[in-house]
This record gives sequence, structure tokens and C-alpha cells, in this order.
Amino acid sequence: VKLYDFTLAPSPRRVRVFLAEKGIAIPIEQVDIMRNANRTPEFYRKNPSGSLPILELDDGSHLSESVAICRYFEETHPLPALFGVGAKEQAMVEMWNRRVELSIFAPVGHVWSHLSPVSEGRAKRIREFGLIQRDAAAAGFAMLDRAIGGNQFIAGARFSIADITTLCMVDFARTVDIKIQPEQQNLARWYARVSSRPSSKA
Amino acid sequence: VKLYDFTLAPSPRRVRVFLAEKGIAIPIEQVDIMRNANRTPEFYRKNPSGSLPILELDDGSHLSESVAICRYFEETHPLPALFGVGAKEQAMVEMWNRRVELSIFAPVGHVWSHLSPVSEGRAKRIREFGLIQRDAAAAGFAMLDRAIGGNQFIAGARFSIADITTLCMVDFARTVDIKIQPEQQNLARWYARVSSRPSSKA
Repeated sequence: VKLYDFTLAPSPRRVRVFLAEKGIAIPIEQVDIMRNANRTPEFYRKNPSGSLPILELDDGSHLSESVAICRYFEETHPLPALFGVGAKEQAMVEMWNRRVELSIFAPVGHVWSHLSPVSEGRAKRIREFGLIQRDAAAAGFAMLDRAIGGNQFIAGARFSIADITTLCMVDFARTVDIKIQPEQQNLARWYARVSSRPSSKA
Repeated sequence: VKLYDFTLAPSPRRVRVFLAEKGIAIPIEQVDIMRNANRTPEFYRKNPSGSLPILELDDGSHLSESVAICRYFEETHPLPALFGVGAKEQAMVEMWNRRVELSIFAPVGHVWSHLSPVSEGRAKRIREFGLIQRDAAAAGFAMLDRAIGGNQFIAGARFSIADITTLCMVDFARTVDIKIQPEQQNLARWYARVSSRPSSKA
């Protein structure tokens, strides 16, 4: 297998942190999406969506979507379980992973696409839409702070892919100046806990 | 358990079709989100995102996000498998389910929110953004038609949650006048196949 990656992008980092938590080492090839190295016919054959990361399997087929790649490795290397254990916990992990993706990660991505100087010229931008999404992302941070409460991790007592998603989201959000607020102490404690794990450097 | 549902909305339908495919019957309670029956403190305690569907478990806890609820029932009622079997197939189902959600379902949802007369007055609308998303949804239909090729189902040879997601998306898209185009014969054949299953009436 081989992972197509771009170190600076938030989505491929989710897979790198997941692999680090599993203790899995695989070959990694960089694809510079800021220089449009993904906008080639060869790349679109690997992933018609044109996005990273992509996992190349030994049979020559390709898997994309970060969570799908993580799911593959959860099945081939079940321990430590990062998608939860048992029906209720697996469902709670899926719920939190998606809630963070939809309510916070997606708005942060829209802010990056519509407002960041870095993304200028890549696609049509609508400033007003970016501003609405900035408010949505801030509301998402506040919701998450309340939800974490005194829990150790996003989905409860066990570290999971929902923590990895949230870690990558928080660090990406900082690049568009969306930050954990001083009053969001639950989120701040969670962030200190998760970003001190060796996997966060992956 | 009990499912909070709104028959007209596309997301709760994903769970109803999934349950029908599994042969699971549970109590269902309607929540009229068009009349804001979800915008109450009691409802936000069940789901801080304020969305449907929600599954109430017998221990009084609540699960939201359609796919998380489906995941719960996949674990409690494993057959027929609707999330794939084995590492590669499970990953392919996850990939296709997410690809359809992100590349087509999300744009269709934005078209509904920003352009449909039905959604007027519910949130701030940006017509220009709606038009961009309409193009994205159309491009998604074309991508999907190419990807299906001669396959029986979205993720390959086995019916899966990716087919349920796509069925609910295609029927929802019709309400904002986004349709399978005459030249998209693969998608049309797939749609005829899947919408003829009894579960599609759920």
C-alpha cells in the first residue's frame, strides 16, 4: 500500500495521526495540491473528486476519503480500536465524528475557501458566505465545549477517530484565525490532552 | 428504542429505508421541523445540532446523525450487511457513502436552503451561492453516472448504505429540479433497480 499525502492539508493529516495511533508505518508520497499536482487525468483516475488523501492498495485499486481509509486500517489492524467498541459506542463515535465534520470542520473549510488570502484564485469566492460560515464555526466551538464537559475525549471515555478529526480541525481553524476562546475551558483541556500525544506530530 | 422522524425530510428517510432493508420495526414519532417543532430546549437536549433523525435508546440516551443510527443497527442486527463485508468492501462503502454525501447531497441541500421557495425565511440566503451549488450537484450526477458504469450498485456488487444515501439524495434533488439527465443511462438504470425495492417506500 501507499498513501498519497500533502503535509499541509488537514484531511490527509487525519489519516497520518490515525496510522500513528495504530502504530502502522506505510510509504507516503507527497502531492502538492497548492501547485495543482492533483489536477491531472492520472490523478482523477485515482480519485474522481480530485482530493487527498488517497490510499493505493496492492491490487492497484484506490481508496479516497480520509474516514474510508481509516476504516480500512481499523479492519486490518483492529487494535487499539479507534471507531469504538460495541454497538452504542461505535454509534456515538460515528455521531461525534460526523457532528464535528458537519458543524465545525465544513464551516472552517468554507472560511478557508471564501476568505483566506492563501486560497484566493482557486475557486469562485463569496465573501458574505464566508462570514456566515465563520459565525457557524464559532458556534460549533461553543457547542463542542459544552458537550465535552468533564469527558476525557470527544465521544466519551475512549480516544477515537472523533478526537483525531477534532484535533485536525482545531489546528486547521487556527490558520483562518478561528481559535478556542478563553472561556472554552473544557475544549482547551481536551486540546492540551490530545495534542500532547505523540501521534499529533504525524 | 424510538425514532424521531419527519417523513418529508431526506435524512430521516435514510434511516427508515435502512430499517426496512434490515426488517426492523420500531416506534416512530413525527416532529414537524417545517413548523419548528425541533427548535425547543427539550429537542436541543436530545440533539444539540437541532436536526433529525434522532434515535432514543432504552437507557434514555440519544443518538443523532443518520449514519450513526444506521451503524447502531448494523451492529445489533448484522444481517443483511449494509456497510460492506471485509476491510476493502467496508472501506469502499464508506468512501462511496461519503462521496455522494459530500459531492452531491450537500450541494443539493444548499440549493434547497438558498434557492427553494419552500425554505424561504428559514436562514440567510445567498442566491449566487445556491447557483454555484446547483452546478456542483449537476457535476456530481455526471461523476456518479460515469462511476456506476455497469455495476449493480453504488459501491459495487452488493446493495449498501451508499445506495440508500444516493436514493434519498436523488429523490430529494427532484424537489429542487435537479434530475438524472437523459444521457445518464447508468444512473437511470441504477435508480430504476433501487427504487423498485420495497424498502424505497419506507
